[in-house]
Amino acid sequence: MNGENFTLSEKIVSSSYIRQGLQARRSHEQLIRHLLEQGKCPEEGWSESTIELFLNELAVMDSNNFLGNCGVGEREGRVASSLVARRHYRLIHGIGRSGDIAAIQPKAAGSSLLNKLTNSVLLDILKIADLTSTETGDTTGVGVRSLASCFVVPMATGMSLTLCFLTLRHRRPRARYILWPRIDQKSCFKAMITAGFEPVVVENALEGDELRTDLEAVERKIEELGAENILCVHSTTSCFAPRVPDRIEELAAMCAKYNIPHIVNNAYGVQSSKCMHLIQQGARVGRIDAFVQSLDKNFMVPVGGAIIAGFDESFIQEISKMYPGRASASPSLDLLITLLTLGASGYKKLLSERKEMYLFLAQELKSLASAHGERLLDTPHNPISLAMSLNGLQAESSKAVTQLGSMLFTRQVSGARVVPLGSEQTISGHTFRGFMSHSEAYPCPYLNAASAVGITREDVTLCIKRLDKCLKTLKKERSVARGRSPEEASGE
Amino acid sequence: MNGENFTLSEKIVSSSYIRQGLQARRSHEQLIRHLLEQGKCPEEGWSESTIELFLNELAVMDSNNFLGNCGVGEREGRVASSLVARRHYRLIHGIGRSGDIAAIQPKAAGSSLLNKLTNSVLLDILKIADLTSTETGDTTGVGVRSLASCFVVPMATGMSLTLCFLTLRHRRPRARYILWPRIDQKSCFKAMITAGFEPVVVENALEGDELRTDLEAVERKIEELGAENILCVHSTTSCFAPRVPDRIEELAAMCAKYNIPHIVNNAYGVQSSKCMHLIQQGARVGRIDAFVQSLDKNFMVPVGGAIIAGFDESFIQEISKMYPGRASASPSLDLLITLLTLGASGYKKLLSERKEMYLFLAQELKSLASAHGERLLDTPHNPISLAMSLNGLQAESSKAVTQLGSMLFTRQVSGARVVPLGSEQTISGHTFRGFMSHSEAYPCPYLNAASAVGITREDVTLCIKRLDKCLKTLKKERSVARGRSPEEASGE
Amino acid sequence: MNGENFTLSEKIVSSSYIRQGLQARRSHEQLIRHLLEQGKCPEEGWSESTIELFLNELAVMDSNNFLGNCGVGEREGRVASSLVARRHYRLIHGIGRSGDIAAIQPKAAGSSLLNKLTNSVLLDILKIADLTSTETGDTTGVGVRSLASCFVVPMATGMSLTLCFLTLRHRRPRARYILWPRIDQKSCFKAMITAGFEPVVVENALEGDELRTDLEAVERKIEELGAENILCVHSTTSCFAPRVPDRIEELAAMCAKYNIPHIVNNAYGVQSSKCMHLIQQGARVGRIDAFVQSLDKNFMVPVGGAIIAGFDESFIQEISKMYPGRASASPSLDLLITLLTLGASGYKKLLSERKEMYLFLAQELKSLASAHGERLLDTPHNPISLAMSLNGLQAESSKAVTQLGSMLFTRQVSGARVVPLGSEQTISGHTFRGFMSHSEAYPCPYLNAASAVGITREDVTLCIKRLDKCLKTLKKERSVARGRSPEEASGE
Amino acid sequence: MNGENFTLSEKIVSSSYIRQGLQARRSHEQLIRHLLEQGKCPEEGWSESTIELFLNELAVMDSNNFLGNCGVGEREGRVASSLVARRHYRLIHGIGRSGDIAAIQPKAAGSSLLNKLTNSVLLDILKIADLTSTETGDTTGVGVRSLASCFVVPMATGMSLTLCFLTLRHRRPRARYILWPRIDQKSCFKAMITAGFEPVVVENALEGDELRTDLEAVERKIEELGAENILCVHSTTSCFAPRVPDRIEELAAMCAKYNIPHIVNNAYGVQSSKCMHLIQQGARVGRIDAFVQSLDKNFMVPVGGAIIAGFDESFIQEISKMYPGRASASPSLDLLITLLTLGASGYKKLLSERKEMYLFLAQELKSLASAHGERLLDTPHNPISLAMSLNGLQAESSKAVTQLGSMLFTRQVSGARVVPLGSEQTISGHTFRGFMSHSEAYPCPYLNAASAVGITREDVTLCIKRLDKCLKTLKKERSVARGRSPEEASGE
Repeated sequence: MNGENFTLSEKIVSSSYIRQGLQARRSHEQLIRHLLEQGKCPEEGWSESTIELFLNELAVMDSNNFLGNCGVGEREGRVASSLVARRHYRLIHGIGRSGDIAAIQPKAAGSSLLNKLTNSVLLDILKIADLTSTETGDTTGVGVRSLASCFVVPMATGMSLTLCFLTLRHRRPRARYILWPRIDQKSCFKAMITAGFEPVVVENALEGDELRTDLEAVERKIEELGAENILCVHSTTSCFAPRVPDRIEELAAMCAKYNIPHIVNNAYGVQSSKCMHLIQQGARVGRIDAFVQSLDKNFMVPVGGAIIAGFDESFIQEISKMYPGRASASPSLDLLITLLTLGASGYKKLLSERKEMYLFLAQELKSLASAHGERLLDTPHNPISLAMSLNGLQAESSKAVTQLGSMLFTRQVSGARVVPLGSEQTISGHTFRGFMSHSEAYPCPYLNAASAVGITREDVTLCIKRLDKCLKTLKKERSVARGRSPEEASGE
Repeated sequence: MNGENFTLSEKIVSSSYIRQGLQARRSHEQLIRHLLEQGKCPEEGWSESTIELFLNELAVMDSNNFLGNCGVGEREGRVASSLVARRHYRLIHGIGRSGDIAAIQPKAAGSSLLNKLTNSVLLDILKIADLTSTETGDTTGVGVRSLASCFVVPMATGMSLTLCFLTLRHRRPRARYILWPRIDQKSCFKAMITAGFEPVVVENALEGDELRTDLEAVERKIEELGAENILCVHSTTSCFAPRVPDRIEELAAMCAKYNIPHIVNNAYGVQSSKCMHLIQQGARVGRIDAFVQSLDKNFMVPVGGAIIAGFDESFIQEISKMYPGRASASPSLDLLITLLTLGASGYKKLLSERKEMYLFLAQELKSLASAHGERLLDTPHNPISLAMSLNGLQAESSKAVTQLGSMLFTRQVSGARVVPLGSEQTISGHTFRGFMSHSEAYPCPYLNAASAVGITREDVTLCIKRLDKCLKTLKKERSVARGRSPEEASGE
Repeated sequence: MNGENFTLSEKIVSSSYIRQGLQARRSHEQLIRHLLEQGKCPEEGWSESTIELFLNELAVMDSNNFLGNCGVGEREGRVASSLVARRHYRLIHGIGRSGDIAAIQPKAAGSSLLNKLTNSVLLDILKIADLTSTETGDTTGVGVRSLASCFVVPMATGMSLTLCFLTLRHRRPRARYILWPRIDQKSCFKAMITAGFEPVVVENALEGDELRTDLEAVERKIEELGAENILCVHSTTSCFAPRVPDRIEELAAMCAKYNIPHIVNNAYGVQSSKCMHLIQQGARVGRIDAFVQSLDKNFMVPVGGAIIAGFDESFIQEISKMYPGRASASPSLDLLITLLTLGASGYKKLLSERKEMYLFLAQELKSLASAHGERLLDTPHNPISLAMSLNGLQAESSKAVTQLGSMLFTRQVSGARVVPLGSEQTISGHTFRGFMSHSEAYPCPYLNAASAVGITREDVTLCIKRLDKCLKTLKKERSVARGRSPEEASGE
Repeated sequence: MNGENFTLSEKIVSSSYIRQGLQARRSHEQLIRHLLEQGKCPEEGWSESTIELFLNELAVMDSNNFLGNCGVGEREGRVASSLVARRHYRLIHGIGRSGDIAAIQPKAAGSSLLNKLTNSVLLDILKIADLTSTETGDTTGVGVRSLASCFVVPMATGMSLTLCFLTLRHRRPRARYILWPRIDQKSCFKAMITAGFEPVVVENALEGDELRTDLEAVERKIEELGAENILCVHSTTSCFAPRVPDRIEELAAMCAKYNIPHIVNNAYGVQSSKCMHLIQQGARVGRIDAFVQSLDKNFMVPVGGAIIAGFDESFIQEISKMYPGRASASPSLDLLITLLTLGASGYKKLLSERKEMYLFLAQELKSLASAHGERLLDTPHNPISLAMSLNGLQAESSKAVTQLGSMLFTRQVSGARVVPLGSEQTISGHTFRGFMSHSEAYPCPYLNAASAVGITREDVTLCIKRLDKCLKTLKKERSVARGRSPEEASGE
């Protein structure tokens, strides 16, 4: 309520109480003022009531909510269902304009503000995301401090990568190839195909248990194909062990040397100070044109958005102008609500807990592995995902390995991923041998588990318990199948 | 509640009342059964309570809501903010899988069901969308009966067109051009640029007041460029008057003849039986590979989704497989809620009211125009948008024309669009003379108003009233500016 | 947002758009200002967004929502469940203080404002409630214009009557009796018992089909018991036909003459201009101390509140001070939301539709009755409830009459009430012969149906259809039971 | 969804995923089954999604939500505003019937189930409420194990006490007096007045700092007035220090001896094992007819409900039958949601934290008091409220004492209550000397602070900090007022 209405209220309810109410309102306004002024994520999270107050204020500024509006256009933000209107806080006009997803909409000042603020708050968070590392004394952790610009795009990571590639095409019209250190995940492969380029898959090098960028192979390919024919190098940070993040620094340097653009798929890397550090360093010593990450995987919001970020504001703007048409405000809204709820401190706390759970998961998996005659693969460069060998199961039959996967699924262990030997898959004409293992011939089958943001101690404990049970059951079954008693079997 | 729980309830509350409750529950279940069985939009809309019951049931089936789930993957559908969880009905996993936006997700049976049902219900609606025409005795109206497949994609119309073009590239790797009868709307132009093609703009022919496809010019271009170098013809149905929908039938025939793909931008054409009829006819006599339309403009949902539809199921699937990665379920959720709320009959009623309002708007604009010495342009082929000349204003100064636009904006008339003479705009390197008017030199400046789905009689009345006032004010101001009294001025 | 925040927003989004947003916000503020200034129900209903904006503003003023509050009292408005907080719009402190349900709470300026405004808006509505009658040209309709005061009490009608009686006790400490023209509804009888008084039941007079106040019997009782021993006369307006509203005018005059307080049970009478007129006239020519009505039955809100109203402000205040302790704000909140949603015009429209449906129901019941050899009882003084004789069923067996009731229940006809002959019931020691029929020996059994606020044409049509079917089924069954074919039976 | 619908779903989405969804649904059903079967509070809280699923199921069973219902009664559960319908989960019919607030409603099986379950779950909680004491090794803590019956009544504690007194009147028609050990809280005093009885105030005895029941004075009064003239003894547990809970055991024994009913005001005593123990012991050794407690103060729900509980089921039923008419379901709904959210373990945790905060608050107040030359009053029998002397302020002026109160209010310290010397107040004709202090002449003024359920460490810390600041400010002001420097003043 405005001042006049507070004054009127004093005629109805004692003015000292009303004045205290007014003062209380001001403390919400102060929070909003701070946000508008700084464009940064508040250190402490807001209460739901401040958030909803703010969203309602934004909605009021959009023309579809004007009390006296009359609309004779083809797009007026009308909503047929009140359930739908309500769940979007009556913010209906989406974000962007036909020319530019970051543009301001004349019909929707509130939604435009939402869009700008979300990107601004997000920029702030990406710059500080890895501060947790300093708390834990990890000196490698310095934020992506030199980040220049970022924006939320309401498309998945893969499609967002496609958009980056399409933007680069206009800069390098002759280029046909994208160099891509192999990572067995369909959507990032298809991102290149969809954009109309030919992915050049560079196999990884096996270093100990780890699969890691084969820098020499990359450089060989550049020389072989000719730098000017290469659209970009497309590297990856976060990934499933035993693959580990690419050698971003070295790749960035190589890209600078050969004058080749460099796009990094940082899918769920925001949650890891190591991944963010790799990007910061890459940009410092070499060239990173843009890096792309998932909203849902890093910020605990529903699937459907990604962040495109970079160190050169004009290139990031070029990408944002490449998206033709308006876009859903839903991912931005989810992100803004989430960041305002958590505050910077809440988000940092989540990251720090994740790191802690990573250590706990590693230790638990290690014990379990040794109890079953297996081992935790040694992948120190992967800060999120872990892998445990399944040689014993494999020795029995490869069917047992896949059976473990479906047993875990049935027992509501989600996200544990079983990787058998020798799978082969053809995607858009390209055949991957050893598919899922990021390598044509990884030495053993294994099981993945990850410590991703939001994971709880209970997740880990339950997973280990159920996994243990499954492994025992499988062992028993096999013993029986071989006509021996389980006791004999376990006595091997 | 299941049968067992109903039985237990009978021990607490008289069994005859509980049994009536059970029977009441069954009537909701019957509606759901019908939906699952038929995959069609219910004729009568559902109550909010049935809809929410159903959505809650879907959510329960997704792994992020399993009471005993433990998650050790990198994407577990965790949500940090309860405001966010709630507004998505706890459906967090989005739709599709990395390979295919239409694929089923193992972790999310409920979301998968939502996705499948939405597309199925939508297919049903698109087939019947123009039934209103039979009500009004308009015999041209036959639905897009031969429609084979469609899917919701959580991107704006423009980006969805881009996806279609990118898909076609794999079929026609050598093609470089897209033939495009001019329509002055940025995002559909950029859709081609973003996809990496060169738009070949074909100017429209002036027929009476109407701007209409210049078929000969199109054919000339085909022969000039060579059919095999042309990715597709990109035509348009719904558009701002005095441009009228393209001659889809003839274009489709031409595409068949030259074996060129044909993509139709049907942005807000679902709401018009004429537009839908054009598409149906085009597919019958010639070739239409896919047509794309906006979700928000046709179904009164928030901005952010589009529908890609077509007559050849395998091609539509090819497009859906081209989207790399999962996608937001938000547009599908909004659409499903809306269609279940309205029912087929409710949607048809909206379409029929729109048509009625179109006639009312035309008549009101006509009267207003003649009162101000202007005229309603004669554009019978445009079923949605109307245009009124602004010669009088122009005679004064072209500033007056743009001033009218900003006056209407300030007075909360949204969507009324003023088109001055001689604008020029360069988009992605291509210069459009006479921008906004779909023509290099349209004879007069004008004002657009449209009757889009959801428009009310009050919208029309208010718009006319305010427009009248603005025109009077402008006339007065100009008289004063010229040093004459308004009375003299009006006496001209 | 306040002015400062709007100014900050102009740095983020173009100031012309922000200023339009600010102007839009002002139109909501204007509505709120009008409400605060006038304390009256707005003529036109508010949009949900204005209502929620307003409720959020109120909530912000309550101490439990102060961002910097620290609480060390025994009642701090803390809420354990966010579902609960949300459904109350975070208005947790209830209404009133220990001394007075209408008092202002220092801890809760917002809730206090809500309470005051609700009562004020309600007073306005009660004064105009019957304006519909002027629309229909019914000249008897004049509002309860001289109404002085009213308040919402979060208790059912019965308990609210009890509170009135308890208040009167302090004015008439010697009185033991309450005079009560019989109406067969448990809670109003128990209201007197609970208050500790002895109800003196005055049987009704049969006038044609109508049961109506026996004024002479009332006066006889007064003289017999002695006016000073009588706490009050407790009369009734709205009731089930064939009982009709009491002769309020004459009773009020009698109360004035004998100096006896007069409390009117106007349970669902607000919706009828006739009932309201009776009260207005009673107060004009005689004495009405307070009248009590249900919130849910008159205003389409959930069960649980009542309104106590009267013509002497100080007496109504006395009652409000009699409620010991704070009270739930829930009924007030529901009422305020509802009245702001409907607006005065919306409420009047509902009342006018109800009246229309009453006529439709009467006509339909009449046709049905005559088709089954029954008749619609002639009860012109009852403006809401109707009764149709069931002589035919009774002729068969009285079991058939009650069977009809349960058949209707099973067929989801709710509210149709079957009244057999000769029921007897003892309540708190008092035996009612002919219970449910308001008379010791009403001539025939019957079925009641009412046209209450919110009823739709479909309610009436479905009810008549199902009733018809039930009557036919019963006739057939009985024919069969008597060993004759249905054909023969219907040939009687 | 029922089995049939799951089967149909398997045709749309792979059956293994659907079956997992079905299994997930069953785990919710299992929770509901357990609740229906046991009628007890689940040990672990439910997720919001289970709770809402359950509430939606209940709503579906009420006739106002029947899809095919037609209503021709005067009360059909129609709701005009969808905001209102939604916030009540479409449970509109309230609880109870005209005869009995605990009765089952034919029209509302779901609401009836809600009502029964709430009371049943509550009974369970009251029996175990003080289990926390065993955790802390406090051997006095045994639950109110012998509790027979309880019900939620949607009225404040005061009005609920009134209802108890009104019920007793029917058992003791001649009684005029209620014996009441003084406690200075308006609503419990008014509860007796409203019921029409004469409260006989028995002054407390000063024992050390504590004010405690003067048992001899009570017995003297009984003999003076005659047991048969006394309706009941009305005692109190939870109260503001330095008053302490009444000697419930001894009073109960006395009531048994003289055959006088005994009603206990246990306002916010559920949260304290000591208060609950007193009641349990009183019932064991003597007579307690009913005890009444606030819903909001004990269960962190909005104001507006109370619990009436007792050891003799038939008497509690008698009270429930005394409430004339239906009642709001809102308090029951809030309570059920809250208890299902918390689970028994969550509620016990809250109680245990409260106890801990009580110790913390006591210690902090003690330090603060001694720093300001005051002392924490020694009131070991009061388990919730504490008092700190304000002799220093008083020495200056009594205005300073009240000034402290308003300073704390302005600084958003809510619930801290300043009690000056010598207040006098007349309530309903009875004059209380020393009002607020429970005594005609308590030796010193003081300040109250309480540790109530839901209090946080931050509440305590902030309160102490602000209180400290206020005391310092006041000291400085007074020094200045006396013309001395603050330094001198503090040097006293």
